[in-house]
Amino acid sequence: MTQWLQATYLVDAQPAEIEARAAAIALEQSVECPLEAIGDQRVLDEIVARVSGITLVGEQRYRVDVRIAAETTGGEPAQLMNMVFGNGSLWEHVQFVDLTLPQELLARFPGPRHGIAGIRALLGAPERALTCAAIKPQGLPIAELTRLAHTFALGGVDIVKDDHGLADQAYSPFARRIPACQAAVSEAVRTTGKRAFYAPNLIGTPRVLRRHAQLARDEGVRIVLVAPMIVGLPAFYDLVAEFPEFVYLSHPSFGGAARIAPPLLFGRLFRLFGADATIFVNYGGRFAYSRDDSAAIAAAARAPWGDVRAVLPVPAGGMSVERVDELLAFYSCDTMLLIGGNLLIARDDLLSRTRAFVEATESFHSRVTVP
Amino acid sequence: MTQWLQATYLVDAQPAEIEARAAAIALEQSVECPLEAIGDQRVLDEIVARVSGITLVGEQRYRVDVRIAAETTGGEPAQLMNMVFGNGSLWEHVQFVDLTLPQELLARFPGPRHGIAGIRALLGAPERALTCAAIKPQGLPIAELTRLAHTFALGGVDIVKDDHGLADQAYSPFARRIPACQAAVSEAVRTTGKRAFYAPNLIGTPRVLRRHAQLARDEGVRIVLVAPMIVGLPAFYDLVAEFPEFVYLSHPSFGGAARIAPPLLFGRLFRLFGADATIFVNYGGRFAYSRDDSAAIAAAARAPWGDVRAVLPVPAGGMSVERVDELLAFYSCDTMLLIGGNLLIARDDLLSRTRAFVEATESFHSRVTVP
Repeated sequence: MTQWLQATYLVDAQPAEIEARAAAIALEQSVECPLEAIGDQRVLDEIVARVSGITLVGEQRYRVDVRIAAETTGGEPAQLMNMVFGNGSLWEHVQFVDLTLPQELLARFPGPRHGIAGIRALLGAPERALTCAAIKPQGLPIAELTRLAHTFALGGVDIVKDDHGLADQAYSPFARRIPACQAAVSEAVRTTGKRAFYAPNLIGTPRVLRRHAQLARDEGVRIVLVAPMIVGLPAFYDLVAEFPEFVYLSHPSFGGAARIAPPLLFGRLFRLFGADATIFVNYGGRFAYSRDDSAAIAAAARAPWGDVRAVLPVPAGGMSVERVDELLAFYSCDTMLLIGGNLLIARDDLLSRTRAFVEATESFHSRVTVP
Repeated sequence: MTQWLQATYLVDAQPAEIEARAAAIALEQSVECPLEAIGDQRVLDEIVARVSGITLVGEQRYRVDVRIAAETTGGEPAQLMNMVFGNGSLWEHVQFVDLTLPQELLARFPGPRHGIAGIRALLGAPERALTCAAIKPQGLPIAELTRLAHTFALGGVDIVKDDHGLADQAYSPFARRIPACQAAVSEAVRTTGKRAFYAPNLIGTPRVLRRHAQLARDEGVRIVLVAPMIVGLPAFYDLVAEFPEFVYLSHPSFGGAARIAPPLLFGRLFRLFGADATIFVNYGGRFAYSRDDSAAIAAAARAPWGDVRAVLPVPAGGMSVERVDELLAFYSCDTMLLIGGNLLIARDDLLSRTRAFVEATESFHSRVTVP
């Protein structure tokens, strides 16, 4: 019997044209040719996608549910994306907002290998909220980056990550930066006795990704940062499959949030393809995300979804130490707070400001009773 | 001396806020932290991006030019995209529309290995307009796909390509489809004595792409179809580097045209990363592209650009045999016309309709004098 996945789109249209637009999406995302060109009855019955629902959700805006034959995806990430938002992405009036996979197809995707539980086990922090800081800006010499990494770890941050702009530039080449930062964090851990991990940024073509992943593994790295839309979702999927021992922290760069709904892309698709923790834009920061957007991303990251592990929400962007209580009350403790620039502006007081960030975050669940 | 690339964005803003928005883009696309967090003078002088121009181009719409240090890109495709439209893509009011690379950085990208001249040499067609048809829909058994491929080649089409929905599904697995379609086209070539090539669709994670490319090469395939945004731009780049003998026909699927201007993405970025021919949405078809959009894509594909070869424009989508003269008058003969569904609706008359398409296209330059 044919199994169907359901893809959901927000479609801008006049009332008189929505049925035709919905039907066009179903054709475009399956056979991509006029029905009258199809003579094969099996294709008409089992391959042509069908509109299963049209709901008015706003002024000249509709939610359109389309059922697409699971068989057409071939059970792998590239063709899955092709079938759910391939040519459809070329219509400006169409946004891809939700995806429901039948059990059998969902089971083809292992998802996060560690997820929230695995990250908490690695950090030895079963309940409290978690912290993350970024070494930046790019352009600094390696000695300065390692000094920042050492200070953050000394201040008690759980994960010290590369800025996502740190790649393999001449001023801080990957092969020299990774051992140096890893050593700096290890040294701080010996001083504090508290666990902390350095997460380097893996970025490049698939061949570079693999080479850098091997190098990081050889250096004892346990957590890595990857921007799945930059490296490509299928390349991200391959990387996770080949290096399942890493905890993957996904970065939203190149995520072009306007055309794929942020909760779907950062909360669910990145999770489906193997992210363990997902960095996303926090409300009230320098990006125009609303509280609802941010809450929906966190909810999508944690919601039960077959056997796919929950992924840790990591709000970021325009965060500050002063907002820790507000943010944890909003997101709950199953969250990692990522603060970047707001720590670095402390300059010479970086260590004390880092400690204040860590202390506020880690003590939250004992200090504050969320109503 | 610092070399700068220039990235250009269309930014929606009120007059009072455009300067702040432009400055925010420059920070986000370089150091991604507040200026006051930066103590290093070299970073301030040579790494921080700067706004070099703001021009009003429409109602509350501005063209913003940003100079970004070439050094930050590391000279490779993933980090280049990260630096020109990474976090910036997360702002709904920002569209990425143009890119100028300094000579030294541009020279790091080999671009198309064949381009228009190489395709014309392969086809033995130095001047005339070229034809392409697609075997579809997916879901058909291999025997039916090969029948279509054979008929198209018999009808004189230059390139018979897979529909981009043909992946590695159970109903037409790659390993069986490719030899069968390749043989069908070869057989037609023996009958007609005219060159024709089968172009299979390569889609999947990087490991699958490589395996399928090897298989295609072993079968004598010379031209392949790839959707760079689906497989990921860096994976596409690696594929071209590893298999430079193929002619690459790029497909716009998942191109989400609204946030990266189509002439930039399909005409220049795909070209920069190695496409030899670029399929894009034709005006007046089932997508809402204007004549100006289509003309701009074709112009970007062919325009002189350092040593980067010209890429062949391939308009597609809602094309018809009846429009051949109109389209060639519009695009010129340095074009390959791709017709899919409009041939297939002929059903039992597929061969004669294919012949009409080929005849109209190939005779255009001798029949019609373009004013």
